[in-house]
Amino acid sequence: MLKKVLLSGFAGLAVLAVGILIGHFGIEKGSSAPSWMSDLSRDVDEKLIQEFIAEVDNVKIQENLRELTRVPHMATTAGDEATVQYMLKNWQDTDTGLDASWREDYRVYLSFPNRDKPNNVSVGDAADTVVYTVREKEKAYQSEQDDPEVVQPYAAYGPAGEVKGRLVYANQGKASDYETLNATLSLTGTIAIVRYGGAGRADKAINAAPFGVIGVLVYTDPYDINDGLMSDENETYPHSWYLPPSGVERGSYKNHFGDPLTPYLAAKNGTYRIPVENITGIPPIPIQPIGFEDAQALICELGGSAAPEDWQGSFPCSYNFGGPGFASSSPFNNSDVTLHLYNRGELRDSANVMGVIWGSVEPDRYVIYGNHRDSWVHGAIDPSSGTAVMLEIARVLGQKVKAGKWRPRRTIIFGSWGAEEFGLIGSAEYAEEYVSKLSQRTVAYINVDISVFGKLSLKCYSNLTRSQVNIPGSDSVSVYDNWIRYSNRTSAAYGNIPNVGHMTGAGSDYASFVHYLGITSLDISYTYDRSTTRARIYPAYHTAYDTFDYASTYIDPGFTSHQTVARTAGNVLIRLADGLLLPFNCSDYAETLEQFVSTAAEAFEAQLVANGISLEPLKAAVKRFRTAATSLDRTIHNSDLANDTPLRARMINDQLMLLDRAFLDPLAFPNKYGYRHVIWASRSSNVATFPGVADAVEKARASGRKEDWAQAHKHLSIVTQAISGAAHTLAEAQR
Amino acid sequence: MLKKVLLSGFAGLAVLAVGILIGHFGIEKGSSAPSWMSDLSRDVDEKLIQEFIAEVDNVKIQENLRELTRVPHMATTAGDEATVQYMLKNWQDTDTGLDASWREDYRVYLSFPNRDKPNNVSVGDAADTVVYTVREKEKAYQSEQDDPEVVQPYAAYGPAGEVKGRLVYANQGKASDYETLNATLSLTGTIAIVRYGGAGRADKAINAAPFGVIGVLVYTDPYDINDGLMSDENETYPHSWYLPPSGVERGSYKNHFGDPLTPYLAAKNGTYRIPVENITGIPPIPIQPIGFEDAQALICELGGSAAPEDWQGSFPCSYNFGGPGFASSSPFNNSDVTLHLYNRGELRDSANVMGVIWGSVEPDRYVIYGNHRDSWVHGAIDPSSGTAVMLEIARVLGQKVKAGKWRPRRTIIFGSWGAEEFGLIGSAEYAEEYVSKLSQRTVAYINVDISVFGKLSLKCYSNLTRSQVNIPGSDSVSVYDNWIRYSNRTSAAYGNIPNVGHMTGAGSDYASFVHYLGITSLDISYTYDRSTTRARIYPAYHTAYDTFDYASTYIDPGFTSHQTVARTAGNVLIRLADGLLLPFNCSDYAETLEQFVSTAAEAFEAQLVANGISLEPLKAAVKRFRTAATSLDRTIHNSDLANDTPLRARMINDQLMLLDRAFLDPLAFPNKYGYRHVIWASRSSNVATFPGVADAVEKARASGRKEDWAQAHKHLSIVTQAISGAAHTLAEAQR
Repeated sequence: MLKKVLLSGFAGLAVLAVGILIGHFGIEKGSSAPSWMSDLSRDVDEKLIQEFIAEVDNVKIQENLRELTRVPHMATTAGDEATVQYMLKNWQDTDTGLDASWREDYRVYLSFPNRDKPNNVSVGDAADTVVYTVREKEKAYQSEQDDPEVVQPYAAYGPAGEVKGRLVYANQGKASDYETLNATLSLTGTIAIVRYGGAGRADKAINAAPFGVIGVLVYTDPYDINDGLMSDENETYPHSWYLPPSGVERGSYKNHFGDPLTPYLAAKNGTYRIPVENITGIPPIPIQPIGFEDAQALICELGGSAAPEDWQGSFPCSYNFGGPGFASSSPFNNSDVTLHLYNRGELRDSANVMGVIWGSVEPDRYVIYGNHRDSWVHGAIDPSSGTAVMLEIARVLGQKVKAGKWRPRRTIIFGSWGAEEFGLIGSAEYAEEYVSKLSQRTVAYINVDISVFGKLSLKCYSNLTRSQVNIPGSDSVSVYDNWIRYSNRTSAAYGNIPNVGHMTGAGSDYASFVHYLGITSLDISYTYDRSTTRARIYPAYHTAYDTFDYASTYIDPGFTSHQTVARTAGNVLIRLADGLLLPFNCSDYAETLEQFVSTAAEAFEAQLVANGISLEPLKAAVKRFRTAATSLDRTIHNSDLANDTPLRARMINDQLMLLDRAFLDPLAFPNKYGYRHVIWASRSSNVATFPGVADAVEKARASGRKEDWAQAHKHLSIVTQAISGAAHTLAEAQR
Repeated sequence: MLKKVLLSGFAGLAVLAVGILIGHFGIEKGSSAPSWMSDLSRDVDEKLIQEFIAEVDNVKIQENLRELTRVPHMATTAGDEATVQYMLKNWQDTDTGLDASWREDYRVYLSFPNRDKPNNVSVGDAADTVVYTVREKEKAYQSEQDDPEVVQPYAAYGPAGEVKGRLVYANQGKASDYETLNATLSLTGTIAIVRYGGAGRADKAINAAPFGVIGVLVYTDPYDINDGLMSDENETYPHSWYLPPSGVERGSYKNHFGDPLTPYLAAKNGTYRIPVENITGIPPIPIQPIGFEDAQALICELGGSAAPEDWQGSFPCSYNFGGPGFASSSPFNNSDVTLHLYNRGELRDSANVMGVIWGSVEPDRYVIYGNHRDSWVHGAIDPSSGTAVMLEIARVLGQKVKAGKWRPRRTIIFGSWGAEEFGLIGSAEYAEEYVSKLSQRTVAYINVDISVFGKLSLKCYSNLTRSQVNIPGSDSVSVYDNWIRYSNRTSAAYGNIPNVGHMTGAGSDYASFVHYLGITSLDISYTYDRSTTRARIYPAYHTAYDTFDYASTYIDPGFTSHQTVARTAGNVLIRLADGLLLPFNCSDYAETLEQFVSTAAEAFEAQLVANGISLEPLKAAVKRFRTAATSLDRTIHNSDLANDTPLRARMINDQLMLLDRAFLDPLAFPNKYGYRHVIWASRSSNVATFPGVADAVEKARASGRKEDWAQAHKHLSIVTQAISGAAHTLAEAQR
C-alpha cells in the first residue's frame, strides 16, 4: 500500500503583534494637508490579502513546475541557465512582472565527477578479479533517468583517489560509531560503509580518517527512508513515493556554507581565493554514495560479530561489523572493496536572479523572499516546488503593481539563488557582497525551498492569529488549526499554539540571513504527519526520481498544497511589506531566552559554579531583556500612531528590525564560517540552550581542562553581553 | 625668551552639506494639520547658534578648570571620585543641568607603582656601591608637586623586576634603532636608554627584548620638547611653558586600547577575564621613564663610538652608543645601571559619567560628545581643558532645555570617560557594552580632549563654510580663515580649504567610536603654530607641572582659546543635533578614497601586478563609490523636503549616518583589538593609503613570501568589498 503524504503540521500565520490592532486610522487633516499623509499611516489592507489568496492559482504553480523541471538543472549547467532565463522572462513580463529583474553572477568553486572517467566502486577478490560492481547510475523507470545530463551520484567536494581495503560497517559514521567499531577491530586501511543520518555528510569521512579508515561508502537504509520497503516490483517509486533500490542521495560534503575559496568575500573575478588545499570541513578521504540495493549486497556479506541492535537496518540479514571484510562463508571472502573516484573542483559562474518591487513609503526597508534554483537532477520538489510557489506569488503581486492597483509600503526583493546544493553558495555570496546594505535595511527574510515537504520552522513571529488560509480541500479547517493539531506547544502568553522550530542549522538559504546578517527569518513548508512514517525526508530527495511526475503523482496531485503554501507565505510577505508596524512581538523572544536559561541552569549550573563560574549575570541579562520587551509592548500599545509623527512608527520598527542584529557577535564562533548569531548558531550539544555555551561546557566536561572551562565562561559572557545589548536596543528609544 | 603659544591652525567649521541650503521651510498646512508637522521639518536655528556663541563664558570655563584640577585625579583615586561628583553636580543641576545624568562603573585592570616600595633607578660600581640615583619624583616648584597624591613617574603595565646591566643609548627605541646598535655591539644583558618619539611607548621595550636587552629607561630629550632649552633657573617652567629638567612623561605602555583583561566584553563583575599573563602588546622587560636631567647624567657618560647625527639631542655632549656601558674616563667607569621596579596590576572600579538631553523629533538618533576625566597628575590641560569646555557647552545648552527654550531634534549624549590614560578604557568599555545600540543610532561622535593644545583632525565633514566663530582677540579673523592660514590643502571641489587630519590612530577616546563602531567622528583642539617650535606636544604633558597655574599662565591666559573651542565644538554639536539633514558630504569621502587609490597605485601597483594581483577591482569600486556619492548629492539637491514625506529626510540621514559603518570589517585586523574600519585603521607603513593593504604589501615586499603576497591580495579584496558595499548603501535608497 502506498502511503499518501499527509498535508499537515504547517500553519499559516497571520503575523500581528499583540495590541497592534490599529487597522486603518485616519489622520485628521484639512484640505491643505500634504498628499503623503494618508500613505504614511496606511496599514495592511485586508481586502488586498483576500484578493491575493483568491488569485493564487494552483494550475499556474503546476505550469511553473513543469517548466522548471524539463531538464536536469544542476548549478552552472545548461539546464540551470534555462531556469535563469525562465525566471527573467517571468519577472520581466510587462503585465505580470516586477519593477525590475536582473542576474548577478559569482565565480565559485564547485565539485563534479568526471564524465569521461565515472566514479567506480567494486569488490575484487584476492587475485584482483572484480567479483561485484556497484551501479554507476540509477535505474531508469522513465526517460528522465536516462537523460545524459543526470549527474552520476557522487560526494561533492569529496577528494579523487583510488583506495582499496577490507569493508567494515560503521552505522551512521558518527565519531562514537567509529569508536565503538575500533574497540572491536583495527580500522587501519579499511573502507567503511555507513548510512545517511546521525552525522553530517562530510563528517562521516572526517570522523573516520583519524581511525585509519581510507575510504567511505554512504547509502540510505530503507529503514530510515522507506519504512522498510525495498522492492521496486511493487513497493517503491514508480509504485509509490518510496526510494527505488538504486536511488542515491547526492549532496554537498562540505561543512561550511558559501563559496569555499572566498569566505566572507563575494566571489568575483579578482577576489582573493584561498588555496584549494586550505579548504576545511570537507572529506579528507575518498567517499562515495551508493544505492541501498548495492549496500545490501555488501553489508549482508560482512563477517565479524553482529553490530549492536540500533545499528541494524531493514536488510534481511544481520548487520555485522566486518571481520574486517567479508564473511569466510561469503562469495566475497578475502575480497577488498575498491573506490576509484575522479571528482574534481572547478571555478564556475553561478547566477542569482533578483527581482524587486519598490516600496512606496519606505523604499529603504526590504522584505526579502528567496529560494534556490539549482537542483541535483530535475529537482521537482527540491527546490522547484519552492520556486514554482515563488513565481506564483510574484506573478499575483506583480500584476497588481503593473496595473497600478497596489504598491507595498516597503520594498520587496525576490532572490532566486544559485548553487545552493553545493553549500548555500549563491545566497552566501549575495549576503557577503551586500552585507552593509542588507544589515542596515532588511526587515525580514522568508525562505521557501521545498515547499510541500520538509522543514517546519518559524522564529520571532508570534501571536499567530487564526489564518485566512484553509488547508487544501477544506472550507473550514485553517492551516493554523491543522498545525496545532499536529504540532503544538503551550505558551505562557498564548496557551496552545503551533510549535515553531528554531533555525539552528544551515539547511537552506536562510542561513546567511539569520546566522551571518542577523536578519529575522522564516523558513516554511507543508510537511507530512511524522507519526505515520519514519521517512526523515521525502524519499526521492537528491535522486534522479525527484521529477515532475513524482511531485504531481505522489507529493501534491492537483497542486493544492503548493497553493496553500503560496497563500500562506504570500500572506506573511504582504503583512511584512505593508504593516504600519512590523508584525514582530519581541516578548516572545524573551520566552525563548528564559527557556534557554532554565535549560542551561538545569544542565550546567552546578558544574559551572563548581568551576567558579556564575550564571547570575546571564539570568540578570534575560530579566533585563524581558523588562525591556514588556516596556516596548506597552509603548506600542499606548502609542497613538494616527496622531503621532510618522517618524514614531519608523522608530519602533527600527527597534523591531534591528533586534536580531543585536545578537550578532562576529568573533563568537571563529571556526564556524558565517555563524554570528549567539542565540541561533549551530550546536553540537544536545542541550537546547545557547549554542556557544552548551558546546563549550560539553567540551570542558569532557576534558576537565581549566582552559576549556575558561572558554565556557567566555561564551557565557558573550551571550550575556549580547542579550543585555539587545535589551538596550528595546529600551528607551524615546523618553 | 619664552615662546608664547600661538593660537592658530584650528578652524571652526560650519558643517553644511553642499546644496543643502534648505533653511526653514514651511509646510503648507491647514488649521487641522497635526502639530508635529512644523517640528518635523525644522532645521538648524541660526539665531540659537548665535545665542549659544554669545553665552559661552570664558570665566565659567576657568572656574571649571580650577575645580577639576584642585587635586591629582588619576583614574579610580579619591581625586577622580571628586571629579565624578563635580560632573554629576553640574549635570544634575536643576537650572543648568541636563535631562538626566548618572555614573556607570566598570571593573578594569590598571597598573600602579607601589607606594611602599617606590621604583628605583641607580648606577652601581663594580663593588655594587651606588654612585648615582635617579630622582624618584619631580622637583616641586609649587605646592602641587608636593601633593602626596602625585603618582611617582612609572610605565603603566610595565612589569615589576630587578635588572642590572651596562647602559646603551638606543635613540627612539625603534626596531631599526636596536638593529643599528646591535650591528656595533652585543646588546645581551644591557639596559637601553631611549628618548620619547618615533615608536610607541610599549614598543620601545617590545622592540628591545629580542636583542637581549633586559631593561629600558625612557626620557624626553629637550631637543624634542623644549626647543633645546634646559635650565630651570630661567628657561623652563615656572619661567615658561617648557618642561623642567626633572619632569617625566608618564603614560600607558600598552598597545591595545580598552581594558586588557576583557577584550570585546564590558568589564563587569562576573565577566570573563583572560589570564593576566595573556595580555599582549605590553613591555616584556622592565621599563621606567625618567627626567632629562637624569638622562643627561647617564648619556653624557656613555662610552663607545658616537651615535649617528640624527640620534643626537640637546645635551652638551656627544651621544655615544655605550661601550656597552660608561666611558673609561667617566666616574661611572665599570658601573652598571640597576632598575628596581615594583609596578603591579589591580582590578579597580572606574566610572564614566553620562549625561543626556533627549531629542524632540528623533530621540533615537544620538550625537555623542565626550572626553576623559582622569589625568596622570592634576591634568589641567590633559584632559581638564577639554572637560572644562564640555561642562560649559552642557551648561549653556542645559539652561536652554531647563528653561523650555530649546530641545534638540536628536538626542545629545555627553560622556565623561574614566581611565583613558591607561588606554582609553572607559570609552572602550562603553562601546563594548552598548555596541548594538550605539551602532544602530549614533550619528556622530565629537571628542575634545586637550582642548587648547594638540591634535587637529576632522573627517567626513566638509564644505567648511566661513565660521561664525572668530579667533580670540579679533572681531574679524575667523577661526576658519586662521586655520587655512596655518594649515591648508587644495581640494578639487573647494579650492583652498583647511587641512584636516585622518584618525588613523588611537590617541584619544574617539578610537572606539571610529575604529570599533564605525561612527563618523571628530577630534578637535586649538593648537600652536608648529613652524615656531619643535615641541611635539605641550611640554608639561603627563607631568606634575600640568597644573591650573601652568594652563592659565602659559597656555591660555584669560581662557579665550578655551572659549573659542567651546564655541566651535558647540556649533558643530548643535548642527549635528538639529540639522534636518545631517551635515555630511560624502563626495568628500570619495576624494579621500581616490587619493588613497592613486597613492597605492604609485607605491605598489607594479609589484602587485608582478605578483599576479590586480588593482583594477579596487579602482572600479572607488569609481562606483564616486558615482553613488554624486548621485546621492543630486538626490539631496533635488529633494523638496518641505513637501515630501518626513520619512524622506530620515532615509537620507540613515544613508549618511550608516556610511562609515559600511567600512567596518570585524575580521580585517584579527591582531589589532578594536580596529574594524578598513579606511582609517592604524598603519605601520609610511604609505598613506588603505592601512591593511599598505602593511600587508610592505610585509610581502620584505619577506618575498608567496603567503605574504596572498595576504596583500586578501586585504585588497577586503577593502574593495567594503568600498563597493559602502557605494551600495549610497545608491538606490529609493527608485
